Amino acid sequence: MAGIAFGRFDDSFSLGSLKAYLAEFISTLLFVFAGVGSAMAYNKLTGDAALDPAGLVAIAVCHGFALFVAVAVGANISGGHVNPAVTFGLALGGQITILTGIFYWIAQLLGSIAACYVLKFVTGGLAVPIHSVAAGVGAIEGVVMEIIITFALVYTVYATAADPKKGSLATIAPIAIGFIVGANILAAGPFSGGSMNPARSFGPAVVSGDFHDNWIYWAGPLVGGGLAGLIYGNVFIIDHAPLSRGDF
Amino acid sequence: MAGIAFGRFDDSFSLGSLKAYLAEFISTLLFVFAGVGSAMAYNKLTGDAALDPAGLVAIAVCHGFALFVAVAVGANISGGHVNPAVTFGLALGGQITILTGIFYWIAQLLGSIAACYVLKFVTGGLAVPIHSVAAGVGAIEGVVMEIIITFALVYTVYATAADPKKGSLATIAPIAIGFIVGANILAAGPFSGGSMNPARSFGPAVVSGDFHDNWIYWAGPLVGGGLAGLIYGNVFIIDHAPLSRGDF
Amino acid sequence: MAGIAFGRFDDSFSLGSLKAYLAEFISTLLFVFAGVGSAMAYNKLTGDAALDPAGLVAIAVCHGFALFVAVAVGANISGGHVNPAVTFGLALGGQITILTGIFYWIAQLLGSIAACYVLKFVTGGLAVPIHSVAAGVGAIEGVVMEIIITFALVYTVYATAADPKKGSLATIAPIAIGFIVGANILAAGPFSGGSMNPARSFGPAVVSGDFHDNWIYWAGPLVGGGLAGLIYGNVFIIDHAPLSRGDF
Amino acid sequence: MAGIAFGRFDDSFSLGSLKAYLAEFISTLLFVFAGVGSAMAYNKLTGDAALDPAGLVAIAVCHGFALFVAVAVGANISGGHVNPAVTFGLALGGQITILTGIFYWIAQLLGSIAACYVLKFVTGGLAVPIHSVAAGVGAIEGVVMEIIITFALVYTVYATAADPKKGSLATIAPIAIGFIVGANILAAGPFSGGSMNPARSFGPAVVSGDFHDNWIYWAGPLVGGGLAGLIYGNVFIIDHAPLSRGDF
Repeated sequence: MAGIAFGRFDDSFSLGSLKAYLAEFISTLLFVFAGVGSAMAYNKLTGDAALDPAGLVAIAVCHGFALFVAVAVGANISGGHVNPAVTFGLALGGQITILTGIFYWIAQLLGSIAACYVLKFVTGGLAVPIHSVAAGVGAIEGVVMEIIITFALVYTVYATAADPKKGSLATIAPIAIGFIVGANILAAGPFSGGSMNPARSFGPAVVSGDFHDNWIYWAGPLVGGGLAGLIYGNVFIIDHAPLSRGDF
Repeated sequence: MAGIAFGRFDDSFSLGSLKAYLAEFISTLLFVFAGVGSAMAYNKLTGDAALDPAGLVAIAVCHGFALFVAVAVGANISGGHVNPAVTFGLALGGQITILTGIFYWIAQLLGSIAACYVLKFVTGGLAVPIHSVAAGVGAIEGVVMEIIITFALVYTVYATAADPKKGSLATIAPIAIGFIVGANILAAGPFSGGSMNPARSFGPAVVSGDFHDNWIYWAGPLVGGGLAGLIYGNVFIIDHAPLSRGDF
Repeated sequence: MAGIAFGRFDDSFSLGSLKAYLAEFISTLLFVFAGVGSAMAYNKLTGDAALDPAGLVAIAVCHGFALFVAVAVGANISGGHVNPAVTFGLALGGQITILTGIFYWIAQLLGSIAACYVLKFVTGGLAVPIHSVAAGVGAIEGVVMEIIITFALVYTVYATAADPKKGSLATIAPIAIGFIVGANILAAGPFSGGSMNPARSFGPAVVSGDFHDNWIYWAGPLVGGGLAGLIYGNVFIIDHAPLSRGDF
Repeated sequence: MAGIAFGRFDDSFSLGSLKAYLAEFISTLLFVFAGVGSAMAYNKLTGDAALDPAGLVAIAVCHGFALFVAVAVGANISGGHVNPAVTFGLALGGQITILTGIFYWIAQLLGSIAACYVLKFVTGGLAVPIHSVAAGVGAIEGVVMEIIITFALVYTVYATAADPKKGSLATIAPIAIGFIVGANILAAGPFSGGSMNPARSFGPAVVSGDFHDNWIYWAGPLVGGGLAGLIYGNVFIIDHAPLSRGDF
C-alpha cells in the first residue's frame, strides 16, 4: 500500500529542492498569467459581458495549452505540479514528502499571486476575476463538481507520469494533463468555474481582496486530488517507487 | 484471418481483469462527465438556445480532449476502450475475448450512467441532453452517419494501437483516437449528434428516461466499429497477436 | 540530386501496393467526410449564412484534426499521403514512383467522391459546398495562395516524415501535417478556401456537378507541392533514400 | 555560468549555416503568412469589425498551430527559432554564436517581410494589420506584457529543447513552443496584441509603412527572451553544451 513520505528535513533544502521551488513558482506564474489573462481578455473584448460559448472556448483552450506547457517546462526540475491539489494527491500516494510539498504549495501560491498583480498592472488596472459558483448552483454542488474534475486531473497525473508502468505515455503526459483541464473547463466553467487548482483560485482572491467562495476551490480540489492519489496509488500502482525528477 | 477470441472463464475474473473493469468505469465516467457536461454548459450559457457554431466547437473540442485523456489513462490498465463499439470492434478482430468484452460493456455503461446522475446534481438539476437525429435527418441517415464516423474511430484504434506494425504511432495513439472524435462531432454534430459510442448515448437516456432514437446509437456504432475491426483485422494486420495491456 | 523514381511495373501491383491504395482510399474518404461535413454542419446550423469567425474555427479545427488522424492511420501502410499534391511533391523528390503515384491519385479521388456522395445522403440531401475564390479575390491570387499554403504542407511532410534526419520529429509528424492545414485554413479560408488538396476539392465538384474554379485547386496545390519537393529534396536532404512504408 | 559564444567567422558561412539561414527564412515566412493571414481573414469575414472572442480564438489557434509546425520543420536544420527573441535568448545562454545569430535575425526579418507582401497580393490588396497596444493600455504596460509572455516562450524553448536533461520532452518540444504562444495570445491579444516576436511585428510594419508602437515589440520580446536565457541557462542548466542542430 502507498504511504505518505515524510522525508528528511535536509532533503527539502538541497540545491535541487530550491531549484524545484523556483521552477514551481515560475511555472505557476506563467500558467496563471495566461489563464486569468484569458478571462480578462474576454472582459476587455466584450466590455464585461456575460460569458458566451466562444469565450468559454477561448478560456478553456488557453488554460489547456498553458497548463500543458507549464507542466512540461517544470517536469524535469520539480515534476511540474503547478497545483497544490496535484502536490497533495502525490503526497497521499507517497510520491513526494510532506515537507517538500509544503514548500511546493508556498511557491505555487506566490506564483499565482505574482501573476495576478502583474496582470492588474499590464491591463491598465482591470479587475482580476475570481472563481465563484454560478447562479443556480449551490456551494455543495460546486464542491462536488470540483471534486470530480480534480479527481480526473490527478488521476491523469498518476496514470501518465507517476505510474512506473507508464511507458511511452510519459512522452505525452504534459499534453494529457493540460487537455483534461481544458476539457473540464468546457464542462464545469459555467457552473463552478472549473478551477481544479487552489493556487489558480487563490491569486485572484488575494489581488481582488474578494475571498467569497474561495474555500470551495480548496475543499473540492484537495478532496478530489486526494481521492485520486489514494485510489490510483493503492489500486493501480504495485511496488511503486517515489516519483523522481525527470520521470516524464 | 482474425477470429473471435472467446477466452477462458477464469481470465475474465483475474485481479488484472477486475482492475481493467474499474479502469473502464472510471475512464468512461470522466469522459462522459466532461462530454455531456459541455453540452449542458452550452445550455446553461445560452438559456437552452439552438446550437450555434461556437457551441459546436466547444462541445467537439471537449469530447476530443476528454476522450484523448480517458484513453490515455486507461491504456496501460484496460487498453482504454471507453466505448462499447471499440470493445466490439476489437472483439471481432480477435483482440479481446467475448466474456471480458461483456464486462467491459457493463463497466462502460455504468460509468456513463454514474456520470450523468452526478451531472444532474452538480448543475443544480438541469436536464441531461440525449442524442437524437436533427430535424430533416431520418433514422436511416442517422444510422449511416454513425456507421461511418464510428468506422473512422475504430479504424484509428486499430491502426495506432492494435496493429503490431504501429511503431512510434503508439505514442500519439490516444491523441489520434480523441481527435478523430472531435473532428467527427464537428461534422456530424448537427445531423446525428455525433455519438460514435453507445455508452456516451446510453447514460443520458437512462438519467433523462428518454430512449427516443437511442437504438440508433447502438446500431450505427456497433456496425461501424465491427466493420472496422473486420476490415482492418483481416486486411491490414498479418500474423497479429492479441492486444495485450501496455501496448500503447 | 533527387530524381524522379519511375519504378518497376510489378511493384505497383504487389499485394503491399494494393493495400496501400485501399489505405489511401479509406484515409481520404474519412478525411473528406469530416472536412466537407464540417462545412455542411455550419450551413445546417446557420441556415446557409455567410461564414463567420466561429464557423471558420470549426472548419479549420475539423480539417486539422481529421487530416492528422488520416495521415496517422495510413502512415504505416501507404505513407498517409491523403492528397494528390503530397504524392506529387514526394514523386518530384524521388520518394515514390510515378506509376504508384498515379494509383494513389486514383484512390484519393475516389475516396473523396465517395465521401461526398455519402455526405449528401446522410445530411438528408443538403448541397455539398465546393471550393471557390471569394469575392474580391482573383483566380491568380487564389492560385498563388494555394501555392504557398500547399508548399507549407508538403515542406512539412518532407521535414517531419521523409527526411532521413527527422529523428524524433517522426513521432509527431502526423500532428504537424494536420495542424499546418488547420492553421492555413484559418488564414486562407476566407480568400481561396484553403484547399491545399486537389482531392479535397474534386469530390465536392463531382457530386455537385459544379467545376467552377476547380482548376485553381489543381494548379495551386500541384505547383506548391512540387516546389516543396524540389527545394526540400535537393537542398535539405543529402544522400536520401526513397521513403519506405513505416517511416513514421 | 553560461557565456556568450562569439564563434569563429567561418562557421557562420559554412554550407550548413547557409542552409540554416534558408530554413529560418522559410519557417518564418510560413509562420507569419498563416499568423498575419488569420488576422486578415477575420477582417475579411467581418468587414474590419472590432475583435470578438471567436476571432481571438481563430487568431490564437492559428499562431499556435503554425508556430508549432514552423519550429518542427526547422528543428533539424536551424534549430527552428523563427523569432529574433528566441535567437537572442539562446545567444545569451551561450547556445548560438553572435554572428550566426545576426544572420538568423536577417533571415527571420526577410521571411516576415516577404510573407506580408505576398499576403497583400493574395488577399486582393487588403491592409496588413500591425501590432499596437489597445486603448487603455500604455506603452509601458505593453512592454511589460511582452516581457512576460516572451519570457514564457523562451523559457519553454530552453526547458524542452536546449536543456540537456530534456529527455522525452524533446519529442513534444515544438508543440509546447507553439502552444505557449497560442495560450499567450488568448491572454495578451486584446491588450498588447501578443507578439512575442519582433519579426512577426516587423513585417507588417514594413509592408504597411506604419512603425507606430513597433519599438514595443522589439524591447519587450528581447528583454523577456534575454531574461529567460539568463535565468534558465544559469540556474537550471548545469554543465551545458551548446545546442547543436538536431537536438529535437
